[in-house]
Amino acid sequence: MRNDNNKNIPYKIYLEEHEMPKQWYNMRADMKNKPAPLLNPGTLKPMTAEELEGVFCKELVAQELDDTTAYFDIPQEIQEYYKTVRPSPLVRAYHLEKALGTPAKIYYKFEGNNTSGSHKLNSAIAQAYYAKKQGLKGVTTETGAGQWGTALSMACAYFGLDCKVYMVKVSYEQKPFRREVMRTYGADVTPSPSDTTEVGRKILKEFPETTGSLGCAISEAVEAAVTREGYRYVLGSVLAQVLLHQSVIGLETKTALDKYGIKPDVIIGCAGGGSNLGGLIAPFMGEKLRGEADYKFIAVEPASCPSLTRGKYVYDFCDTGKVCPMAKMYTLGSGFIPAPNHAGGLRYHGMSSVLSQLYDDGLMEARSAEQTAVFKAAEQFARIEGILPAPESSHAIKVAMDEALKCKETGEEKTILFGLTGTGYFDLVAYERFNNGQMSDYIPNDEDLKKGFDGIPQFPGNEIK
Amino acid sequence: MRNDNNKNIPYKIYLEEHEMPKQWYNMRADMKNKPAPLLNPGTLKPMTAEELEGVFCKELVAQELDDTTAYFDIPQEIQEYYKTVRPSPLVRAYHLEKALGTPAKIYYKFEGNNTSGSHKLNSAIAQAYYAKKQGLKGVTTETGAGQWGTALSMACAYFGLDCKVYMVKVSYEQKPFRREVMRTYGADVTPSPSDTTEVGRKILKEFPETTGSLGCAISEAVEAAVTREGYRYVLGSVLAQVLLHQSVIGLETKTALDKYGIKPDVIIGCAGGGSNLGGLIAPFMGEKLRGEADYKFIAVEPASCPSLTRGKYVYDFCDTGKVCPMAKMYTLGSGFIPAPNHAGGLRYHGMSSVLSQLYDDGLMEARSAEQTAVFKAAEQFARIEGILPAPESSHAIKVAMDEALKCKETGEEKTILFGLTGTGYFDLVAYERFNNGQMSDYIPNDEDLKKGFDGIPQFPGNEIK
Repeated sequence: MRNDNNKNIPYKIYLEEHEMPKQWYNMRADMKNKPAPLLNPGTLKPMTAEELEGVFCKELVAQELDDTTAYFDIPQEIQEYYKTVRPSPLVRAYHLEKALGTPAKIYYKFEGNNTSGSHKLNSAIAQAYYAKKQGLKGVTTETGAGQWGTALSMACAYFGLDCKVYMVKVSYEQKPFRREVMRTYGADVTPSPSDTTEVGRKILKEFPETTGSLGCAISEAVEAAVTREGYRYVLGSVLAQVLLHQSVIGLETKTALDKYGIKPDVIIGCAGGGSNLGGLIAPFMGEKLRGEADYKFIAVEPASCPSLTRGKYVYDFCDTGKVCPMAKMYTLGSGFIPAPNHAGGLRYHGMSSVLSQLYDDGLMEARSAEQTAVFKAAEQFARIEGILPAPESSHAIKVAMDEALKCKETGEEKTILFGLTGTGYFDLVAYERFNNGQMSDYIPNDEDLKKGFDGIPQFPGNEIK
Repeated sequence: MRNDNNKNIPYKIYLEEHEMPKQWYNMRADMKNKPAPLLNPGTLKPMTAEELEGVFCKELVAQELDDTTAYFDIPQEIQEYYKTVRPSPLVRAYHLEKALGTPAKIYYKFEGNNTSGSHKLNSAIAQAYYAKKQGLKGVTTETGAGQWGTALSMACAYFGLDCKVYMVKVSYEQKPFRREVMRTYGADVTPSPSDTTEVGRKILKEFPETTGSLGCAISEAVEAAVTREGYRYVLGSVLAQVLLHQSVIGLETKTALDKYGIKPDVIIGCAGGGSNLGGLIAPFMGEKLRGEADYKFIAVEPASCPSLTRGKYVYDFCDTGKVCPMAKMYTLGSGFIPAPNHAGGLRYHGMSSVLSQLYDDGLMEARSAEQTAVFKAAEQFARIEGILPAPESSHAIKVAMDEALKCKETGEEKTILFGLTGTGYFDLVAYERFNNGQMSDYIPNDEDLKKGFDGIPQFPGNEIK
């Protein structure tokens, strides 16, 4: 509303190399209410750097624990890699505006133009760099459908690091394409549960027919890291360090908008663990936290996995295997499992501690969307704007379109910015279901939601009602 | 060699919108020896506009037959669409140069950053535009693995045209992903042979177990166009009109290079039907034809489908179904079928008449590459430069790397430019075979090559020996 009315805004704004961010921004530095610290589930005391360094890379632990430093220099080597996959385009959705007949101006930051197909690479390359710098031989991780595993494989190939990926068995077998991308980049991909770890062997003995779960894959990946000389475990979302690296998305976006004197009114992102949303909003939220500007932020999550809109703000495990530290976050309980018909991603039970605190402080809104409506928005967007979006990203598209249609009613010329985190090229099984009219919605009832909290430790100040 | 030595060349050069081409360039206008005209196989006389307009869109026929006009204005509507998927980046392969230890400077024009995953969209959008302008209801086409069909579906969705795609049955069933992309864009995808056409029913009756072929799908698509009111048939490669539209690739590349004062010594492209190569080299070849500059051009084709390096320069059918006009081209014979183990694309039996004439006149070189070497180059490129390339594009990568390694031996600081036509995200079955060490090479012997010419009409001046 405040801007760009008659300027000649191109369809796509690409920054010049010299305009690309040289520092990441840490929102926590400007937060009055800091996110609660990670807890050691045994002692219920905050995790120390020393405890964390047994599992995670040293410099990443330092980033994780630092809630006062606002800016971190992006190492030169990471900047060089960013130049091969970034800047990502900031797109003015002229065609979509016209199709909707809205006076709103719609922009999206598109992170899908790289082989990982998403924003995940922004943090993968950073984590691989710090692992290499520490002199490690390799890293381990888990992956479901393979988006994060692909990004990490690419990053490890670049730095010459060994990469061990535990991939949920059902995905390993039924979704072989991302598996083969990882293998092409040299990663060692093991279907989980496997007989390569103690926890895997135990699960296989107990449930020989299991098709695996993300929780189990995490447990195997952590064991593989801590029992091997020169290995550490890395994680693609949720952690504060990941949001820090992902701030490159928002910083680029803000530089591009500032060049044209544009200020968004509404900023929308999909939210699973929160890495994309946290990265996109970072510099804008910084202004809001410092009282320099105001923006409306909307997190969009699936109605079938509604951690912000229907979860509890308590300490919970980050993984269903309960091997990781506990984090205070909006959560559905680490025992929560989305309905089997859920095809839209964003199936993590919790939400980044940083975003959870911002939401709890009323600095951010949240909405949930049902998956058939999300895929309908995705299809419409694809036909109009050309890009076949990831189901995850399409949650943001859906709400951006809703907001734009509201403007059509009210006549408001709002400027709407949303994050288009990735492409749907490896999600065609879900699209096929949608194309065949076989997609359905599922909204868990309150009873379903209670089950996720079974077995979560309760302690003073963390009563789960 | 002649340039860019100490300038600060970014990793990626993106043109500004106002620098994007406003005209396509028609190489034929500057050719002394014009490509031979299309022949009517019945009369053996050049096809007239009237004859062609029964099958193809009127304005596209005009472009096809015009070998004297050098520049064609790109209609404003197509320019607007190009702005959503173009400019494509011209990338300086710093990482690859370093990994190879070569003094050569390597650039590639990357056409894969759109949902069709390749350069095909450049012509699809033009063809859909002219169909819409003519007031047609829709277009028909055939597709094998689905690259061209995807591009056309996207273009038709944008212009609100009906799109009927005949997809080779074995691909329709075994490669459902591109099929679902097409359906998401609203295309009607029919496995071929089908009972929706006379030719399809005839083939099904004769060979009920057939899994289809491109030749059969072409025949069905042509029949579907000519028997329906308001439909025309469109084709994604080989034709002169397609090379004209694809010149946008070379024109953008040249503008980007000129901005930095860079002149390539060697220009390399993969060649199937020739649309990508013809587009990439267009403005450079123009300079060569007009005697303004010299460049070395290299077409790279699969050793298992070697139309330029081992084919004959004769009149042949463009399709195995023999329903299209005859073209004079380097061909393996329209009865040629690549070996079943061939996984690298570029399986067309002939080569664009324009490129065939340029090659015959010694203005362009050609090389063939074996597929295991091509996939090895692809894997190396992916790990170093980050992009998982299409097998087709990897033919150009292979020869670009060969040329760069030659420079390492000789110390020459050549500037090498190649076309990276697309991504390999829908080719993971082939990559899986490579990753598992199951890929093999096949070079047809002279006896194999003779078979492709069975049944091709011979006439004075077109003796096939």
